[in-house]
Parts: sequence; C-alpha cells; structure tokens
Amino acid sequence: MIRGYSHPRTPTGRSSLAPRPPWHYAGNCLAVEFGADAEAVGSLLPPPLEFADARCCAYFIEWQFATDDGEELLDPVGSQYRESIFLISGRYRGESIAFCPFIWVDQDMSLMRGLIQGWPKQIGSTWITRAYDVPGKASSQHAPGGRFGASLAAKDRRLASARVTLREPSRLLPTPSFAEAVNVRLFPNLSQGTHDRPAICELVRLRSRDVHVGTILKGDASLDLYDHPRVELSMLRPRTVGSGYRFSFALTVDDLETLADLRTA
Amino acid sequence: MIRGYSHPRTPTGRSSLAPRPPWHYAGNCLAVEFGADAEAVGSLLPPPLEFADARCCAYFIEWQFATDDGEELLDPVGSQYRESIFLISGRYRGESIAFCPFIWVDQDMSLMRGLIQGWPKQIGSTWITRAYDVPGKASSQHAPGGRFGASLAAKDRRLASARVTLREPSRLLPTPSFAEAVNVRLFPNLSQGTHDRPAICELVRLRSRDVHVGTILKGDASLDLYDHPRVELSMLRPRTVGSGYRFSFALTVDDLETLADLRTA
Amino acid sequence: MIRGYSHPRTPTGRSSLAPRPPWHYAGNCLAVEFGADAEAVGSLLPPPLEFADARCCAYFIEWQFATDDGEELLDPVGSQYRESIFLISGRYRGESIAFCPFIWVDQDMSLMRGLIQGWPKQIGSTWITRAYDVPGKASSQHAPGGRFGASLAAKDRRLASARVTLREPSRLLPTPSFAEAVNVRLFPNLSQGTHDRPAICELVRLRSRDVHVGTILKGDASLDLYDHPRVELSMLRPRTVGSGYRFSFALTVDDLETLADLRTA
Amino acid sequence: MIRGYSHPRTPTGRSSLAPRPPWHYAGNCLAVEFGADAEAVGSLLPPPLEFADARCCAYFIEWQFATDDGEELLDPVGSQYRESIFLISGRYRGESIAFCPFIWVDQDMSLMRGLIQGWPKQIGSTWITRAYDVPGKASSQHAPGGRFGASLAAKDRRLASARVTLREPSRLLPTPSFAEAVNVRLFPNLSQGTHDRPAICELVRLRSRDVHVGTILKGDASLDLYDHPRVELSMLRPRTVGSGYRFSFALTVDDLETLADLRTA
Repeated sequence: MIRGYSHPRTPTGRSSLAPRPPWHYAGNCLAVEFGADAEAVGSLLPPPLEFADARCCAYFIEWQFATDDGEELLDPVGSQYRESIFLISGRYRGESIAFCPFIWVDQDMSLMRGLIQGWPKQIGSTWITRAYDVPGKASSQHAPGGRFGASLAAKDRRLASARVTLREPSRLLPTPSFAEAVNVRLFPNLSQGTHDRPAICELVRLRSRDVHVGTILKGDASLDLYDHPRVELSMLRPRTVGSGYRFSFALTVDDLETLADLRTA
Repeated sequence: MIRGYSHPRTPTGRSSLAPRPPWHYAGNCLAVEFGADAEAVGSLLPPPLEFADARCCAYFIEWQFATDDGEELLDPVGSQYRESIFLISGRYRGESIAFCPFIWVDQDMSLMRGLIQGWPKQIGSTWITRAYDVPGKASSQHAPGGRFGASLAAKDRRLASARVTLREPSRLLPTPSFAEAVNVRLFPNLSQGTHDRPAICELVRLRSRDVHVGTILKGDASLDLYDHPRVELSMLRPRTVGSGYRFSFALTVDDLETLADLRTA
Repeated sequence: MIRGYSHPRTPTGRSSLAPRPPWHYAGNCLAVEFGADAEAVGSLLPPPLEFADARCCAYFIEWQFATDDGEELLDPVGSQYRESIFLISGRYRGESIAFCPFIWVDQDMSLMRGLIQGWPKQIGSTWITRAYDVPGKASSQHAPGGRFGASLAAKDRRLASARVTLREPSRLLPTPSFAEAVNVRLFPNLSQGTHDRPAICELVRLRSRDVHVGTILKGDASLDLYDHPRVELSMLRPRTVGSGYRFSFALTVDDLETLADLRTA
Repeated sequence: MIRGYSHPRTPTGRSSLAPRPPWHYAGNCLAVEFGADAEAVGSLLPPPLEFADARCCAYFIEWQFATDDGEELLDPVGSQYRESIFLISGRYRGESIAFCPFIWVDQDMSLMRGLIQGWPKQIGSTWITRAYDVPGKASSQHAPGGRFGASLAAKDRRLASARVTLREPSRLLPTPSFAEAVNVRLFPNLSQGTHDRPAICELVRLRSRDVHVGTILKGDASLDLYDHPRVELSMLRPRTVGSGYRFSFALTVDDLETLADLRTA
C-alpha cells in the first residue's frame, strides 16, 4: 500500500515532502510594522474579506522545524529555513483578521507545508542579522541598542530591506499578527475550460498550539520595498513605518479551521 | 477584483507563480532506460494502477519555459530550470502507462506548475553535460562518440549519477515515456481528523500538444542511485541498465484529462 | 610528499581546487558592446595602463571546463559554470589592450583559476537564454531574429540585464576582446604595516591556444547596469549601446605572459 | 588612483571583495575531536611541519563578519557565512601547532579573506543546528542534554555529518585549536615552465586579538566523513571520536606572522 501525507508517496510514507502533522517550529523573528496605500491593501483582500485599515507588518524569520521524533534537528539541511512574510489587515464577519498576500521561503519542505495551510509561498532568499552571546563589532545583541537588518530577494532581484534598532522591552507582539491569520487554500485546475475554476479555493483560519514567545524588544525601524517585473510586492510600499520588533517564538501546527468554500462565491 | 491562476493573486494576476496556461517548453534531455526490482516498482504504483513490468527510465532535462508572449525567455532566471524525472511502468484499465514516483526541479515556478499536473515535485539540483557547436576537450558533441553525464542531488546529498556514450541515431524515444504519463493530483487536508483524507486525490493523464522532437541519438549508459535517509529513490536501484538517449524536444501544455477520483477508492 | 597546483594539497594532488594546466574551455557567449563615461573608464585602469577610449563590452558566458583527461565533463557540477565579464579599453606601451575591472562566476573552481590569471573574480549569478534545436515559443534560435537575454546578480541584488536580437552574421568578434586582455595578478599581505604592500601585484597578458570560434551573429542590443551599495559596476553605466553578439568558442589556457611588476611602481 | 585591499579595485576602494583589515568575527561553533589514521595525518603536513600525533578536530561555524564601521551587519547577505574547518595536529620547531588541510565556506568574501591568511578555502554548504531561547521540539538548547547536528557538502555530495549531545560545562576549548593554527599562503604561477614553482608559498602563523569565548559545553559526539571523487577529506576518516563541543566566540584579525618562505625549501 502506498502511503504519505504529501507527495512523494511510498509504502513507508517516509519520503513525503510534507510529513504527517504535528509540525513543530522555533524561530527568531525580526518584524517591522508599516502603513501602506489603503487602496492597494484593499485590492489584495479576496472577498469575503473586507478592508479594515492600511496597517501591515513584514516578518523575517529564521526557523527550525521538527516532527514529533525531533530527528530533523540533527540533519539541519532538512529542518532549517528562512522566511519573509507580509501581512495586511482585514475583516471577516466583523472580526479583525490578518491576510498574507506575499510570502517567501528558501526550502521546498516549508513551501509544501505552507501551500497546505493556504500560505501563497514562493522560493526566495531571506537574510537576517543574528545575535550572538559574545561581545564584539560583529555581534548584535538582543538588548536595547541592538541593531538588526533583513533582506529578501527572489529570482536574483532584491525585493525588501529592513533595519531595526532595539530600544525597549514590549509586552505586545507586532500587528497584524500570525495569531489572527486567515489564508486561502488554492489548487488550480488544468483541464480545458476549467482554468478559471480552481479545484480548491477555500478560506481557512490558521490554528496553532503550544505557543511560546521569548523576550520581546521593540524600537525604531525602516523598510524599503523594491519594484520587480513580475512580483507586485511594491504595491505595499510603506507610506509610514512604525516600530520594529525582535523576539523568538515556538509553536505547533496540526489543525486548520475551514471558514468558507470560495468557489461558489 | 483579485486574479491569478495560482498564488499569489493580485488585481492584475501578474504575480501568480504559475501563470495561466498555455505553457510552452523546450528541453535538452539525457535519458537512461533501466530495470528495477519488480516488487519495488509494483509498490510505488497507486491503485488502480497495476504492475506491468520492471522497466523504468531516468530523464535529466535542461528546460526553457515561456507563456504566449515569450518575454520570459529574455529574463531567463524566470524561464530556465533543470529537472530529474524517474518514470516506472504500469497499467491502467489494460493500457500501458508511465507513472512518476520521484521528480526534482530547481525552480519554484516549475514546482508549482508540476503540482497542478500531479507531478510529485521537490526541489533538487540537476547537472547535465552540454553539447557545444565548437570542437575541443571541453565540448561534448551530439553525435556518435559523444559522452554525457548527469547528476541529481537533494538536501546536500547525491541521489543519482548517469553516464551516456552516444553510438547511433534512434527513431524511438526511450520508454516508459512522457507521452503516456499518468499522475496523481494530491492536495492534503490539515483539519484535525482529516490528515488521512486529502482534499484532492485524482488520477490524471497528461496532455501535451505541438510536440517537436529533434534528432534522437542512443548509446551505452550507466546509472547509479544512492541511499538517502528520507528520500527512498534507491528503492529503484538498477538491476539492469539499458540504453542511454539524448535528444531535444519542445511541447505545449494547457490541458489535463481526469481519469478517476481516488478519494473514494 | 604533498602535491597540488593550488590549495588544497594532498599526496596525490587530486584535491586541488585549480588542477594543473592545461585548462580547456568551451562556451556559449552573449555579448553587448557599449560606451561608458570616459572618466570612469580611465579611473579603472591601473597604471601603467593608459586611457584609450570609452568603449566597453559585457560578456555573459555559459562555460564547460575540462582538463586533459576530460572526465570533468561527465560530472558536470565540477565542469560547468556561468560568467559575466566586463571589459574596458586601454593602452599599454602604445598598444590597444582590454582590461577587466569586474567579473563574476558561480563556481569556486573557476574563481580560483581566474585569480591565478589575474581576473578579479567574485561569486555571482548569471543567467543566459539558450538556443534549442527544436522550434517553439520556448526556444530561441541562433539565427537572424533570435532573441536572447542575460542577467547578473550578486549578494541578492540585480547588477545587469542585457537583451540581444540577432540580425545578421558577423565576421568580427566584439571589442574590446579577450584576445587582447591584460590583467593584474594581486595577492595582498596581512602582516601589520603591509596592508598597502601586496605580496604580488603584476601586470600580465593572457595567453590562450587552440581557439575555435563558431558562427558569429550580431544584432541590436540593450544593456542596463544597476546600483549596488558596495559593488561599483554602475560606474560603467552605458552612455551608448552598440551591437549585441552571440557565438560559441573554445580555447585552452596553460600559459601567461608577465609584463611588469607593479609593486615598485 | 586605483585603490583596494583586494580585487576588484576602484578609485574609492569600496568594491574590494576583501575589505581592508581589521576584520571582526562572531560565531557559533559545533566541534568534534577525533583521531585519524596517523599516516594520513602525517602525509597532509607540508614540510617543515612535522608529525606530532593523529588528533584532529572538525569545526562547524555559523559566522557573522564586520569591518570597523559595522554596517555589514545590517545587510547580512554580505556579513554572514557558514564554515567547516578540519584541523590536524603537527609540530613546528618543536612547538605544537594546528594545520588545516581542508576548509569550506559558503561566501566569496570569506573565501578571499581566507586565501590571504593561507586557509585552503573552497565553496561548500554547511548546516548547523541552532539553539533558540524558547522551549519546544524544534528548539535545541545550549545546555546539558542539548542535541546538535552539522553537515558539510561540496559539489552536490555530502562530505561530513556530525552529531553532538551536550553533557557538561568545559573550561577547555577543543584541540587542535585555532589559537595555534599555522597555514601556507599559496599563489600559483601560470607561465609555461613555472607550474611547479608558485609565486608565493610561505608558512604563516595566524594572529587574532580581542578574543571572547562564551560558555563552553561538551558532550558525546559522532562524526562521519564520506568519499568524494576529487576531494580527499575521507583520508581523515575517524578511527576514534572524542568529545563534542559547542560555544560562541568572537575575534579580530588584522595581522599575520610569516614563519618561512617554502619556495626555496
């Protein structure tokens, strides 16, 4: 019998690119809150999501992933990846939500797990300054005064650059936040006449558990988004830039809430 | 209105990772026919596909891709990719088919187009010797005596190495062949209790048109498949190695035939 | 005894990143002639090279490399690389020469061989449209009307984009050309007080033999160079763009002519 | 005037791949002490270095780099790199030294700085498990019980895999250690008849200052080295495996001690 949570499937199921959940994550995150053009934000929200305001947040994360047995950690080429996530604000049935129009990762395993959750993942290159537990000019510190940068590129073009100088502790995480993220699971059809009718187009709400957040520091930030001939990320070019944040967090994913089938809409 | 054949979707639809079909391809292909363990081949065929024989073929292809407007060709980082495909033999309702248990590409755009067609694509690194239209020790020739190699790696481990010495023209393409490929479109669910019930699991037959094949040369070949802690490609380790082939081909894809919904099976 | 033409050295000498010459090359080249700011060109010529005129040429090349035994061709990850070369015009003792202020390759083996010849190589990502021997929308042709593009990126930023539409055969190669290239072999010192006095700084003239050039086609071209916070390639931003060229060529390198020791100058 | 500590040189000197020293570094290091075949170790020591014993150490390091102005940290694609270093034991004029026969980095800037110091650097892919300041199955801890892995690959082949389980604090760093490293600066000649007579071949002793070492933890370890058709790292295949270590450290480099000119030897 052939097994596997995702392709490729084999008799053992061991070859699946996305292993069977639960999926455990730990990440170091640099985030920048910003305000974009309200019309652009509204135009990126798929109905029935509605425009709320123009607040957005860019997250740059250095992740480590494991399944229950944790062996992935010991062969980190299959466990680590870097991600750039852009969240915009929205509203669903009167409730505030976060929606992700653009996201990039640098590993296929993460891309596949993301598609299953409705993240619109592509492959991109993310770099994030690291903190080290030693002093020196090459060592940023997770402390007031610490300076951090991040960048995103795809198809050999720079898409985003961010800088953060930490100033003080924060009790709050940046917003819009993952905790309220709503995605669209989308799987197109290819048969003639069905190119406009995807096989799956459903609104889902992310679910995570066992969330742990480390010390949150916030401070000043800058964020630049650059034009690209195909990728329209620069639609969200910042009109205002808010605070920058740095924190570590861990979470587990093995569930998803289906909100609506959008095919009939 | 938000548009796009695939994620990410925007008002223009221009950002979609997989653009709206038709998809045009041209490729240089090095292929090696081989025989694997019959039980292994049978175990990789999803029902209702049935075992036919142990014949397999490895294809290593250097592709170029374009949509109708052809502009991708002029920014080749978004057009070119390399692919390693392993096809095994099977039978569907009494008819010979080819099934792909393992396939790797090195670009996300190709990965996404592949998933839509049911190819179980992952990201991997493929290298293939090139022919040049000049003589010299660094230049292989697409002619009798020409020597070519190919390799595949994923997650920093070598998975396959192939070598071909061309001997003579061939009127036939290698088998099992793309022309008879049958795939499974698979899109998993993540909601609790549905991890074993994918949202989509359907048997499809590939359709292509405007196929052009260049001069086919065949000759002697070797093929080695290597163990990997997660990827079970070495299940197909060659018991016998047949002919090697080299040829160019072009084709267009904008259709797919759905054969069966496998969820109820 | 420890052997090896370059590091790393072992008793067999087999591990050397740059193997013992001769080095055989075959390449497909897309080139664009352009004129840059005369002052910029002059400022990039190390004395005793003198300014001649503002003519420059950008070359984008898809290479294959082999030593005498040719086995590299069969494991192409160790044989193939892509290169972007910028040549400017100059004069040495009254004679026209070409000088390379900037060059990028995507493999360490090529980088090491280049440093030995005085090429100022860095790692960068080059993409070049390919011609295929089959028709179709994804297949450019090495023939009048054929359209080709190329790009260069380094450290996740686009540095150059080129486009060429072939129009007609040409008997001449683009200029300034490799055949007249003069480089500076440079190896810095690190001991305190010697940071301004390199161990090696010598003017050399490239030597190659067994040169073969395939059919040369030329046509219309465009070339854009982009700003980068560290790499000053955009000093050479085109004021005028001349012809574009496409051709294959092969050559062998196992010699170099030393012109002058520049340390005492 | 043309300036620059290394290629490429421009009027500002800003484009140099290796900037003018001092060079500041901070790194997280996973190390495994092991014993190799005594004859192999001896055969990799260039005279006048002499065999001492068969003790070796593999270091896997995730680095961040900066010059005095520290701006590199804010565009980390030009600051971060990963490195795998293999040190063997030796003796020079009766004194214990460490010698590096093999080393891989994943950025050209680090490769160039390394060549200047005599490190025999090549491009390779290193992955190292990270510690996170949050609990969870995806988060290793820099504490007793913490489990870490590392891998090295070059040219699409796995070269090394290491695993460490931390057990207890250690006051000592692993040996052989960087602090006693002696390298060979090597720059080959290419003119006919000089292929066996490098332009530079000198024995040097590394100098670093402002060294800071964080909390050192040690524990159990495993290390596997794999065969490669060109790279002879597996000459050092472990006969015995000692302790594994994890620690952070920072240092500054702007000097080097020349011990001997080896060309006349």
